[in-house]
Amino acid sequence: MENKILVETSARHVHLSEEHIKVLFGEGATLTHKKDLSQPGQFACEERVTVEGPKKSIPNVIILGPARPASQVEVSLTDARTLGVKAPVRESGDVCCSGACKLVGPCGEVELTEGVIAAKRHIHLTPADAEKFGVEDKQIVSVKIESDGRTTIFGDVVCRVNPNFAPAMHIDTDESNAAAAFGECYGEIIK
Amino acid sequence: MENKILVETSARHVHLSEEHIKVLFGEGATLTHKKDLSQPGQFACEERVTVEGPKKSIPNVIILGPARPASQVEVSLTDARTLGVKAPVRESGDVCCSGACKLVGPCGEVELTEGVIAAKRHIHLTPADAEKFGVEDKQIVSVKIESDGRTTIFGDVVCRVNPNFAPAMHIDTDESNAAAAFGECYGEIIK
Repeated sequence: MENKILVETSARHVHLSEEHIKVLFGEGATLTHKKDLSQPGQFACEERVTVEGPKKSIPNVIILGPARPASQVEVSLTDARTLGVKAPVRESGDVCCSGACKLVGPCGEVELTEGVIAAKRHIHLTPADAEKFGVEDKQIVSVKIESDGRTTIFGDVVCRVNPNFAPAMHIDTDESNAAAAFGECYGEIIK
Repeated sequence: MENKILVETSARHVHLSEEHIKVLFGEGATLTHKKDLSQPGQFACEERVTVEGPKKSIPNVIILGPARPASQVEVSLTDARTLGVKAPVRESGDVCCSGACKLVGPCGEVELTEGVIAAKRHIHLTPADAEKFGVEDKQIVSVKIESDGRTTIFGDVVCRVNPNFAPAMHIDTDESNAAAAFGECYGEIIK
């Protein structure tokens, strides 16, 4: 297990700015903590929104807290096609000129002119983890996931190193399905 | 391009038996040719069905002809989750104890107790292609697809050799999205 990393699947989700939380859920609203996520400080919220694209809508999309400087919608490319929106493959936070959509909440709507992305596959590591794996922040590696019938090596995996992280690789639902990376799943980091 | 193979994405589709064509589209109905597919003799049809699972339905699913001995529904694992059905990763035709669903057509419905699968990724080859690539029928290979930000090596790719085939690798929409295998795309066969 020396070079094995936990692989977690990120389903579609939304990050919201303070301003957009107020528009969608009402003046004075704050996000309601439902469940901690694996990354310290990150949590799933009780609140949900509908993501509307020009082609279709996806209702009941989970919001992840805490609030962020800019709202961001992370979808799979399957979702992007369903919605009829462009979703470039980007690192979280890199939303300049990304896809557009409308968010609909119980108290209002927000037109996002950008913010829709497909998350670039990545590995969260603490500095100690990074040293153990022999990788650096921003380094691109490959990760091999062995499964019954869909063994896959994902290239273009970016390492992200921060003392506040917990060690885990994040892939989206398309990637998870393509590799049959279900249940408790570990990948092998290949440099 | 010596070891490069054309990569095509198969979207969700249905193959129907003669019996089920009659139930869904009426006594005396036959499949209406709309468009040839890359594999000789295979064609997309004008007819569509709704695939119903216990969780949700997917309307307007394309039928591929000609008729087959047993009906078969090929979905992505994203689709399988949407429908709420089990879809084992299988080669086409290997439907024993696979997933169940209901098919709804304009003239009737069919309860499939089995037939829902996620297609095992595969390469169609003629004997001459197989010789050129140095592979045999049923051989398992890997295929590397290079793309902007989602380079991927798919393992567990089964080679299928038949004089009636045209050379092409087939992956499903999850796999295509995971590798950003869009447009005219070629993969490198790795043995």
